[in-house]
Amino acid sequence: MKTEPPVIILVRPQLAENIGAAARVMHNFGFRRLSLVCPAFSPAAAPARAMASGALAILEEAKEFPSLAAALKQTRYALAVTARRRDMNKPVYHPQPAASELAARAPDAALVFGPERSGLTNEEITLADAIITIPANPAFSSLNLAQAVAILCWCCREQTANHERLHPLAPRHELIGLFEHLETALDAASFLHPPEKRPVMVRNLRNILQRAQLSASEVRALRGVIAALEKQSPPRR
Amino acid sequence: MKTEPPVIILVRPQLAENIGAAARVMHNFGFRRLSLVCPAFSPAAAPARAMASGALAILEEAKEFPSLAAALKQTRYALAVTARRRDMNKPVYHPQPAASELAARAPDAALVFGPERSGLTNEEITLADAIITIPANPAFSSLNLAQAVAILCWCCREQTANHERLHPLAPRHELIGLFEHLETALDAASFLHPPEKRPVMVRNLRNILQRAQLSASEVRALRGVIAALEKQSPPRR
Repeated sequence: MKTEPPVIILVRPQLAENIGAAARVMHNFGFRRLSLVCPAFSPAAAPARAMASGALAILEEAKEFPSLAAALKQTRYALAVTARRRDMNKPVYHPQPAASELAARAPDAALVFGPERSGLTNEEITLADAIITIPANPAFSSLNLAQAVAILCWCCREQTANHERLHPLAPRHELIGLFEHLETALDAASFLHPPEKRPVMVRNLRNILQRAQLSASEVRALRGVIAALEKQSPPRR
Repeated sequence: MKTEPPVIILVRPQLAENIGAAARVMHNFGFRRLSLVCPAFSPAAAPARAMASGALAILEEAKEFPSLAAALKQTRYALAVTARRRDMNKPVYHPQPAASELAARAPDAALVFGPERSGLTNEEITLADAIITIPANPAFSSLNLAQAVAILCWCCREQTANHERLHPLAPRHELIGLFEHLETALDAASFLHPPEKRPVMVRNLRNILQRAQLSASEVRALRGVIAALEKQSPPRR
């Protein structure tokens, strides 16, 4: 099942070129829905159309709203991109984890970008569920607006492509079954001791297996490996 | 040790704005060296400087060359970015694997981008060690030049950041030692049979362990696990 990418919301964009460049890269990466909150230029302005290249349909179908609150009415989950630190009690994501969150929330998700110079106001950020910062050179962290759109659209596209390319992960309870199988076998082999070290040894092994992003059939294969090595062991009393 | 990011080479860029936008995003992501092959505009042109924003130093220090061959003289490894398929006997990478390759080849690596409309010529691509394609909407795969630079610079920066964040990987020969230890134990347990299935079983297990991105101490821990389970086994004849 193809998921619908998030709507891209540009709040008070000041340059028509950036509206067009954002539309172009949205189309490059399969995004379709553009919303503009009080743009300084119409998306029909010539520099926007010139920069959009083959993505004119996105400009033509762009929706305009009088406020971010109005633009967000149709969405269930919104992430706001900001370069500056905000002292708000909200999750802060880097682009790749943000793309995972967005994929999980599709199809009613939004990515919100502020004006070129000033960024989003604190009141606007309050409307978002979480914040995205794009890690960059601390001496020059301000990205061009359309470049920021490009990086987020790219990360979302990669997230979707990886999701479709990779095997589905094993259900959580099967992974836990593998953990417990291994730990039982290692307890029987007196490997997980002294007892005060057991928790950290168990955590390290679970971390390794977690990191391998196992499919259900790989979980079964590893349980087979453990059983095969165990089967050789002498009967336990 | 900080690695020096690749040099960015723009071949015959036609728009001064793209030179400036490329410089800006290079500076955002810690790139410093820009080379221009026969640019249509000087990097000192007003639209380039306007788009570069705080990255003027990159424009001012940009080097100009009469040909891609001349620009590549100082480099040992070059990747060429192209949207079109080329029937050449060269590796083709997506951006993230390309970033890994570049990180491994630093500091003498180059990322080569062609002109806005036509892209690199086949003769120019012949000069590169491998090709990068940015996967995109098949109906509209042509990225703006500076957007393509942005995505590659972003991927390289992420690669470096992940590299610094994550533990160092185990040396290759230690990983292979783990593979062979496990396979010997499983052969002894008669797990890897029938013989015609052994190669695919071994490959699947190696893939899992490879994917886990093990550190040297994790390799030792897993060898300990195998040894512990083996130790229980009856003596072999």
